[in-house]
Amino acid sequence: MLVTKTLEEFNAVLGSDAPAPGGGSVAALSGALGAALVAMVCRLSIGKKELEAYAGEISEALPKADTLAAGLMRRVDLDTEAFNAVMAAFKLPKGSDEEKQIRAGAIQQGYKEAVQSPFAIARECLSVLTLSKSLIGKTNPNALSDLGVAAQQAYAGLEGAIMNVKINLPSIKDEKFKAEISGELSQILKTGREAKDDVYDFVIGKL
Amino acid sequence: MLVTKTLEEFNAVLGSDAPAPGGGSVAALSGALGAALVAMVCRLSIGKKELEAYAGEISEALPKADTLAAGLMRRVDLDTEAFNAVMAAFKLPKGSDEEKQIRAGAIQQGYKEAVQSPFAIARECLSVLTLSKSLIGKTNPNALSDLGVAAQQAYAGLEGAIMNVKINLPSIKDEKFKAEISGELSQILKTGREAKDDVYDFVIGKL
Repeated sequence: MLVTKTLEEFNAVLGSDAPAPGGGSVAALSGALGAALVAMVCRLSIGKKELEAYAGEISEALPKADTLAAGLMRRVDLDTEAFNAVMAAFKLPKGSDEEKQIRAGAIQQGYKEAVQSPFAIARECLSVLTLSKSLIGKTNPNALSDLGVAAQQAYAGLEGAIMNVKINLPSIKDEKFKAEISGELSQILKTGREAKDDVYDFVIGKL
Repeated sequence: MLVTKTLEEFNAVLGSDAPAPGGGSVAALSGALGAALVAMVCRLSIGKKELEAYAGEISEALPKADTLAAGLMRRVDLDTEAFNAVMAAFKLPKGSDEEKQIRAGAIQQGYKEAVQSPFAIARECLSVLTLSKSLIGKTNPNALSDLGVAAQQAYAGLEGAIMNVKINLPSIKDEKFKAEISGELSQILKTGREAKDDVYDFVIGKL
């Protein structure tokens, strides 16, 4: 398990010559860090008299942030497992025609999972970004930079996850699957970029 | 120590109502993740026959990436310590005039460190970005998305660190110090953004 490694241990295995963990797991971790920062900003805003008008919204945002942080943290391991499954499929025997067919099927299935995994990371990073955007002007001013960092991390996770979708997509032969993913990807990117820019402009404008 | 916490433990304390660790430590961690990914990309490129022409450059980049990863990882703890030093200064006694003076001096010193810490993070994230940029087209194509994620993480760390400088800068009374930091900050942002865009355009163009 990667999430039970210390920060130092994780960075050591990340920097090693093992191809996994790699960018996909880092994208998930980046999103998880962003979600945790949103949760912290909510916790530092609850009970503040001057933010009373937003107390309901903040109380609703907090469990969403906690859930996203936990979900994205799980994806740190899931993404590396998806990558390893592709590698394992390539190592299957390819002696007989039947073996070749089984191996080809396992590779295709592996690649689909290696696309679906970062695709889910991108979607969840987008949720962190829209949550951050929904909190603009409603949270503790002392934690203003933390809200800004949350959006930066979630956006880096979103962009990184999209790169990981795109590097595996050409290996997939199921054209319908590819078209569906590609179509939604550009919408995720557009909405995510707008949310990141909105949070950035607000935070930088106040600093 | 934060860096000896597991990823899960770190994210739990990050999301808690404790104001530190916060965005500054996350910015450092993001930069460290970026540097580790650069190191991984270098390790996956060394010994590749088709990249022989760049072997010297890659061998020079690798120890730089390792050093940046270790240095930024140390800054995860240093940034939280700098924040805690400001909080501790505010708790100093302020009964007598002498106590008030000592307290004010400690607060000013604390804020300077709380600016210098993320300022150093921003500089080191910039080094990760310029290193990533120097590797464009010279590394293992299988790790193309990893180079892209490296730049995204380093840039998020750079932006996040700058926000953490800016939130503390107004509390500092030393105008010369403020002017020096502000001047260099805009140059770091400009150079960092260009390097991130260059890596992004290259990676996305190839995906």
